Amino acid sequence: MSRPHPELSAPGPLPAGGLRVIPLGGLGDVGRNMTVFEYDGRLLLVDCGVLFPEDHHPGVDLILPDFDHIRDRLDAVEALVLTHGHEDHIGATPYLLRERGDIPLVGSKLTLALLTSKLREHRLKETVQHVVTEGDTIELGPFRLEFVAVNHSIPDALAVAIRTGAGTVLHTGDFKMDQLPLDGRITDLRAFARLGTEGVDLFMVDSTNAEVPGFTTSEVEIGPVLDRVFHQSRDQRIIVACFASHVHRVQQVMDAAVAHGRKVAYVGRSMVRNMGVARELGYLTVPPDTLVDAKELADHPPERTVLISTGSQGEPLSALSRIAQRNHNFVHIEEGDTVVLASSLIPGNENAVYRVVNGLSRWGANVVHKGNALVHVSGHASAGELLYCYNIVRPGNVMPIHGEVRHLRANAALARRTGVPAERVVLAEDGVVVDLVDGVASVVGKVDCGYVFVDGSSVGDITESSLKDRRILGEEGFISVIVVVDSVTGKVSGGPEIHARGFLEDERTFEEIKPAIVEALDAAAREGVDDPYQLQQTIRRVVGRWVSSKHRRRPMIIPVVVEA
Amino acid sequence: MSRPHPELSAPGPLPAGGLRVIPLGGLGDVGRNMTVFEYDGRLLLVDCGVLFPEDHHPGVDLILPDFDHIRDRLDAVEALVLTHGHEDHIGATPYLLRERGDIPLVGSKLTLALLTSKLREHRLKETVQHVVTEGDTIELGPFRLEFVAVNHSIPDALAVAIRTGAGTVLHTGDFKMDQLPLDGRITDLRAFARLGTEGVDLFMVDSTNAEVPGFTTSEVEIGPVLDRVFHQSRDQRIIVACFASHVHRVQQVMDAAVAHGRKVAYVGRSMVRNMGVARELGYLTVPPDTLVDAKELADHPPERTVLISTGSQGEPLSALSRIAQRNHNFVHIEEGDTVVLASSLIPGNENAVYRVVNGLSRWGANVVHKGNALVHVSGHASAGELLYCYNIVRPGNVMPIHGEVRHLRANAALARRTGVPAERVVLAEDGVVVDLVDGVASVVGKVDCGYVFVDGSSVGDITESSLKDRRILGEEGFISVIVVVDSVTGKVSGGPEIHARGFLEDERTFEEIKPAIVEALDAAAREGVDDPYQLQQTIRRVVGRWVSSKHRRRPMIIPVVVEA
Repeated sequence: MSRPHPELSAPGPLPAGGLRVIPLGGLGDVGRNMTVFEYDGRLLLVDCGVLFPEDHHPGVDLILPDFDHIRDRLDAVEALVLTHGHEDHIGATPYLLRERGDIPLVGSKLTLALLTSKLREHRLKETVQHVVTEGDTIELGPFRLEFVAVNHSIPDALAVAIRTGAGTVLHTGDFKMDQLPLDGRITDLRAFARLGTEGVDLFMVDSTNAEVPGFTTSEVEIGPVLDRVFHQSRDQRIIVACFASHVHRVQQVMDAAVAHGRKVAYVGRSMVRNMGVARELGYLTVPPDTLVDAKELADHPPERTVLISTGSQGEPLSALSRIAQRNHNFVHIEEGDTVVLASSLIPGNENAVYRVVNGLSRWGANVVHKGNALVHVSGHASAGELLYCYNIVRPGNVMPIHGEVRHLRANAALARRTGVPAERVVLAEDGVVVDLVDGVASVVGKVDCGYVFVDGSSVGDITESSLKDRRILGEEGFISVIVVVDSVTGKVSGGPEIHARGFLEDERTFEEIKPAIVEALDAAAREGVDDPYQLQQTIRRVVGRWVSSKHRRRPMIIPVVVEA
Repeated sequence: MSRPHPELSAPGPLPAGGLRVIPLGGLGDVGRNMTVFEYDGRLLLVDCGVLFPEDHHPGVDLILPDFDHIRDRLDAVEALVLTHGHEDHIGATPYLLRERGDIPLVGSKLTLALLTSKLREHRLKETVQHVVTEGDTIELGPFRLEFVAVNHSIPDALAVAIRTGAGTVLHTGDFKMDQLPLDGRITDLRAFARLGTEGVDLFMVDSTNAEVPGFTTSEVEIGPVLDRVFHQSRDQRIIVACFASHVHRVQQVMDAAVAHGRKVAYVGRSMVRNMGVARELGYLTVPPDTLVDAKELADHPPERTVLISTGSQGEPLSALSRIAQRNHNFVHIEEGDTVVLASSLIPGNENAVYRVVNGLSRWGANVVHKGNALVHVSGHASAGELLYCYNIVRPGNVMPIHGEVRHLRANAALARRTGVPAERVVLAEDGVVVDLVDGVASVVGKVDCGYVFVDGSSVGDITESSLKDRRILGEEGFISVIVVVDSVTGKVSGGPEIHARGFLEDERTFEEIKPAIVEALDAAAREGVDDPYQLQQTIRRVVGRWVSSKHRRRPMIIPVVVEA
């Protein structure tokens, strides 16, 4: 089992007849999924998603894959294939299209519809779109694609088989193998079997749940639980929070609402938008007279409505958070109301989610969540399902994708247990270059592939160094010390003025250190030092020592010497 | 079931013969546990712990209970009773003793030994200590105490029965009911039954695991799992990380090490210190020739040693984090090594812990954790155990303690299900005042009880306002704009100089806005404005508008007008 080597260098040229695979994101992180396939000088892209920032990326809005490696070769891109409509697979597309606006987009009906509404928000013009469905084949330059139905936590997801002269790649996208999906659209294992029989040279497999033993519970199991919750809560308000793209989850809540004689209102911009799209395209069935506008909720008794809301991850500005703090405009939570969090709990969001749960509990709401009821199932195949896949496909080479290192490793171990030789399991991370040549996949190098931060209107301008400063400022605050020096005489003519934020903010705190600063500057002047940079270093040293010994803190110290 | 009312005001005087109970911490948060009991003008304190800060308390080292309510009455304190040696129950004691150094301390042998080493670190002088053990009774002013053995994730934990003229309180401290504990010291349900028969008027019960159905698995179940891990990893290095106070967990690792012919080294200052205390007092059994110093590890082959380490919560500066990044001085992780995280995963630490797991996985280590093996059990009683307690004690009133609101509510619901009338279950939060009068416990008011932040050497000086500044600085960074004004003419004589940190840091970014600043200041001068504060507001407005429209960010803007 080959391991990612940080010491890898840029790869040599791709041997003639070989296929090159470069993950630009999604291997080592859960998010910003994107893979580049190169064959005979042409490129095919699969997915182009965002990564949501964690606590060590403070203030960052989104993280994009690094397009640097393909920036000079965008003309060689045949198309961008989107496996499904989740943000971590489509969200970075607008940023890619800013660089080349006419890249053809390939995906299923729902996937492209969700993407189109996103492109509209970014004010990007329409592109060439190939709407495909399971069973379709399409030729894009030297790449012959076949699409295979897979089941996931959003409808209309596709795996893609990519045939080139170098062999066949099967890329699962995100998937699971729910045998009783709500829409009857199962992961097409007959197609997997047929492709396997023909020969899959490289099998790229979703690793997200590879550490989870057994099988992912069927979505349909949630229905009876919702029914029971609705029955028990029949006299009061019910709010259900879930992901705004989980059409089947919303369908089940809708069905429960109708069965219990309640109207449904969507709360949250993305919920309203996505469910509008899903309904229009026939993925969501809404019985007549079921939907009401959230603003009209006051016209209906609380026990005759259900709110389907965003905010299941504790997002502080979401409607649900405002409801939990009892400062929502028209939803007032009462003792005995029921709130269902029909969603996963993404690692890192625990404190935010528990804050909402505690807030709701404080007002006496009953909070139903995956910790105390079966109101969520994962969208990804667990270890047991992955074993089925490996045994059905019997691939020549395996490359775990979509996951942190721990997930990729667990998936690799599963492949080996089904008999894939260890040397045919390629453990790569973002930027690692894998060549498929003569039926053998091997790591041949690494390209630069850093995080690209979207921060306000800037893309890529905020660097790790700015983030490091933010982390220091956020933990320690800063002290700024301003001294005015006469530009003619070189003598101190104003200040020191000392301001602090995020540190002890009472300005009297700093009176005691001012004489030492003046003294140090005088000493410097006596030695003939008049370079502002050197004077600033002097100030930094004096203040730094004082704050560390007196206050045992390390705030950022910003000395400024202004000439006047 | 009474609910905490934010609109509660200060309570009236305690009726004669009544007992007043005021939780100063631990009700609404997991941490800083502290309760004040007042009877006949005298006070008894139970526990004095710290709360560890979350992400919305950036840079804060510790959070203490607010002593404000008792500050003027410290002379009336008979004693501080410590139920066990965890930081969230003893950690704030040094700060309390700084306010009155001779408060008598009451606790078990191990609890007071751990506290003593803490007081020594704080350079506090010895206090009067009453070492007690289960079955002991002690009179402190009007409070007659009896101690009851309880089982927890640290040895020598005690519940305390507090008898006064107002009735009997039974306070569990943290506890569970492991029926096969390693040291044979079970939670003494015979004593609970006897006290219940005599009459427990107020039962204060640990709520931490009240949401968890069923029963907490016995600690002893971990032994065979460790044995299997040791067997499978027999040819390579093993590292086990756990809490530095979990003597029984360490004992089990030690036993496995001895059984598999390995030496043991402690890694981490608190592990070395606590296990030294535990061994000296007979709570930890270390066979001869088992311990080696971590610095001597190089003298032993990796497959003949076990490291028992801190860092199980992903603390970035811990030995385990450094090992995961392969920059530890003398431990070099290799493909096939095994790392066991024999610990809980405290909510909020997920990302940090997974960073360590991914780091270790990247080097090829097998990481065993509670997600994939039974290497951790909780220290708290689950719902099933709590039901036993209520049925054995049959208390007059119940007050859930130790937990977030959701835990307290779940515990209250359990009490009711055993037949405690809803109006006898008191749901209080920090600062809520509960009086026990004539056998009835009721909420009578609320005292101020905010967070007290320890930040470097300052205690209580950092306020919510500084933290808000830190949050803004940490998310957005800052822009400082410095202008020098001639103190005689009032004209701009230097600057504007603009510096930014945590924002776009290239100073050329700001060239375009400088003319607008100068223009605005000139305009102000023409209107006769020379007040530095007003000029600063002018600068803030100009820069704020520009940064928001051009960059779509809201960094902190610090305008400084210096006179020279």
